[in-house]
Parts: sequence; C-alpha cells; structure tokens
Amino acid sequence: MYKLVLIRHGQSTWNKENRFTGWTDVDITQQGVKEAVKAGKILKDSGFNFGYAYTSLLKRAIKTLHYVLNEMDLLWIPVEKSWTLNEKHYGVIQGMNKVEMVEKYGAEQVLMWRRGFAVCPPSIPIEDQRHPVHDAKYQNIIDDAARPGTESLLDTVNRIVPYWETEIKEKLKIHKEVLISAHGNSLRAIIKYLKNISDEEIVELNIPTGIAYIFTFDEQLNFVSDEFLADKKTLKKLLDEVKNQTKRQSQ
Amino acid sequence: MYKLVLIRHGQSTWNKENRFTGWTDVDITQQGVKEAVKAGKILKDSGFNFGYAYTSLLKRAIKTLHYVLNEMDLLWIPVEKSWTLNEKHYGVIQGMNKVEMVEKYGAEQVLMWRRGFAVCPPSIPIEDQRHPVHDAKYQNIIDDAARPGTESLLDTVNRIVPYWETEIKEKLKIHKEVLISAHGNSLRAIIKYLKNISDEEIVELNIPTGIAYIFTFDEQLNFVSDEFLADKKTLKKLLDEVKNQTKRQSQ
Repeated sequence: MYKLVLIRHGQSTWNKENRFTGWTDVDITQQGVKEAVKAGKILKDSGFNFGYAYTSLLKRAIKTLHYVLNEMDLLWIPVEKSWTLNEKHYGVIQGMNKVEMVEKYGAEQVLMWRRGFAVCPPSIPIEDQRHPVHDAKYQNIIDDAARPGTESLLDTVNRIVPYWETEIKEKLKIHKEVLISAHGNSLRAIIKYLKNISDEEIVELNIPTGIAYIFTFDEQLNFVSDEFLADKKTLKKLLDEVKNQTKRQSQ
Repeated sequence: MYKLVLIRHGQSTWNKENRFTGWTDVDITQQGVKEAVKAGKILKDSGFNFGYAYTSLLKRAIKTLHYVLNEMDLLWIPVEKSWTLNEKHYGVIQGMNKVEMVEKYGAEQVLMWRRGFAVCPPSIPIEDQRHPVHDAKYQNIIDDAARPGTESLLDTVNRIVPYWETEIKEKLKIHKEVLISAHGNSLRAIIKYLKNISDEEIVELNIPTGIAYIFTFDEQLNFVSDEFLADKKTLKKLLDEVKNQTKRQSQ
C-alpha cells in the first residue's frame, strides 16, 4: 500500500483577518504553528515515515511542513518546493476583506468568484508590482502563462494534475509514503482529480487546517480509500462541519 | 563575481555540554537559534540573495539554514541536503565529554584524534545501533564505505571535494550566490580545498559559529578572496581568537 498525506497549512495572518490571500506570501500565526506541531505529533504517533515531501513556494505552507517534519524527526528528508502547489491566485481581490468585497462587488458576484469552478476574479494588471512577473520566486518559470494575474479553480487543477502525474506519483512509487503541505484550493485540485469529484461538488469541499488527510493507493497506484487522521472527538466535529458546509463561508 | 557563503550551525545541546557530537543528531539550543537569526539579518542587510542552498542531514545545520533563510525571506529557494556535508564522524568518542576522554585515553591520544589530519578515533562497531548503517537517513547511500563508523579530517575532505566539484560548483555557476549551512569539520574540509591550506594548518583553523564566511570567485570560478561578514567589533574579537588559536581548545 502507498500513502499520500495532504496537509493544509495552519492559520495565517490573513486567515485571521478574514482576507483573501492567494499568492500573497503572508506568514503563519502562533495558532498556525501549534496546528502544525500537533499534526506532526499525530503523524509520528501513527507510525508515518515519509521518504519525500512537497510544498508550495509560499512560506505558510513551507513553515507548516518544517514544523511537521521537525516533530517527526524527518527534517533530513528531501523537500521539493513548487509554484504548482501554490494557492489559487485570487487576482485583484487578494488582500480584500470578505465583508468589504461584498460591499464593493455585491454578494452574488463574490459568491461566483468563490464558488464558480471556472470563474476568475479580475486579473492583477501586469504593471502592478504584486503581479507574479515581478516576484523573484517566479523568475525561473519560462512560460509567462504560468505566472498568472488571476486563476479559477479549473486553472489550479490544470497546473497541478501534470505535476502529480509526472513528479509526485513517481516519488510515491519509490518512497511509498509522501507528504504534501499546501493550500485549500491546491489541495482541492488534487482531491478532485484523485477522487474524480464533479466541478459542482469540489467547490463545496472544505479541507480543515492542520489535520492530515490520508490517501491510500494499491500497488498500481489506484486510489483505494481516504480518511482524516484525527481523534474521535475531532473527527465528529469535522463531519458535522461537512454536513453544515452549504451554510458556511470559507475560502 | 560569484559568492559562496559558508555558515557553521549555531550552538547545539552537546556543544553546550562540551561533548563530541560528530554524526549524533542533536538539536540546536535557544542560543543557537539566536545566532542563526542574527546571521540571516546581517546577510539580508548586506544584500545577499541566494538562489540555492545546501546543508547536511543533521538537524542542527538544517535548522540553522531555515532560520537564516526565514530572516532573508528566502525559504522558497531550493535546498539540497546531503550526508557529504555532515560533520566529521568521531567514532567511539561521540557523546564523550572532553574532560572524561582525557582521563580515559590520556591528553596526548586525545590531541592526536582532534588535531591529527589523517588520524581516526576507533570506529563504532557495525553492530552498535549508533552506527550509520542502522540509521534511516543513510539507507539510500549504496556504498557501505560511505557509511563510516569513524573518520579522519582527510576522509571528510575526500567525501566533500567530489560533491563540491560535481554539484555545488555547477549550481554556483547558475545561481551566482550559494549558501552552505554545515559543521566545523565539513567547512574546514571545503576551506582547505578552496584555499589550498596545508594538512598542518587546516587542523588549527577555527570557524566561528553563526558568522557568515564569504568566498568570492571570478567568472572562471577561480578563488579571489575570503572574508567574515561581521561588524568591526565582532571582527576584532574573531581576529584575536585566531591569534590565540594554538592556546585554545575546540572541536
């Protein structure tokens, strides 16, 4: 059996302020650190032993990974960081508070940007210093189309699937247990592909922060099962949240 | 001009207790964290902008690197971890207090182990659980000779030079500024090779912890100059220490 473990980064400063983050490289909070440390402890106690790890180019995911690996005494394993695991790019709404945005654009438009599978917010103009073409992190990406000023969840799926197929899957074959520390939407994109979830359903899936999400595959790398790694009380809370998902608001 | 920056990890728990560490994977202390954070701040203020970083498989060097990169806002750059950058393996004296060792083996023998360029302490027996063949970190090294139970500084030079020539140098050509976070003896080994220092002199060279050591190369990767990156007061202290080196005791 092969195990792919997904973890969504712990709370960031902008999560706390309820602002759309996307590719903005904000730090994690002390609460976020605690979540990552706890996840690492649980993974260690459950006997996981990763041979390889992935993360995005954003520090909230990188630091979450480092805290998890430190707890597991696995800081020495190879780590690959890739822009393809970055959060969905939220275009001009990055940095905006969700309440302010509703006031400015109206609730219906905001809901479309957040929940429309193939809908992008307006792009950050290329001359705007916040555009990825101006960021040193993305200078080694040759294709300008790969430095987006905005993205839909569909765009996020389209950049992640080839990376899964050509890179992560190959390492999973070799190492048997692989860890990915990433973001709400980049993890949604992977989960959609692995579980063949519809466009309508995937936008409603909320992934809790700091809880390891375990995917099991057979020897041929066919998907077998998935489960959250948490104690019964936490699991019950998570399941209740899933039930109430349509009533809730989240990125 | 090309810049290679070497940094020796901040204080570890065993440095503090005056015990020989070698390949024992002890953590850094709060003092060690402070040293790393300070080094990162100075590197950032001096305008360094690394494109690639290296470290050993030992957490005191890995964590030092993470703290430095975090201060520089460069956590996203690629990091390669290699056993070839590990500290010299100290064999059976790993874990021993320097005072206890002198009592057990005599001052002359201890001095030979610490200062003889081609002298190894007795090897850890292969059945001893502390031998690298039993450590998950070293399972992917095919050659058993590369999992030593003891090493001399000569052995350390012999494993590092090919890694410098085939790996680090190539990345320096591409990225122009490369950082290595490693250990007293693995850095001695690199410095000996880069500056062509004699066997007798290199064993007397002490590298301060947490101070960036800058090597500058020309376009053909020929060595041009070296300097410590520190304020005048710290530099004077370092130079005084170098003067008094023959009177001092250190790993």
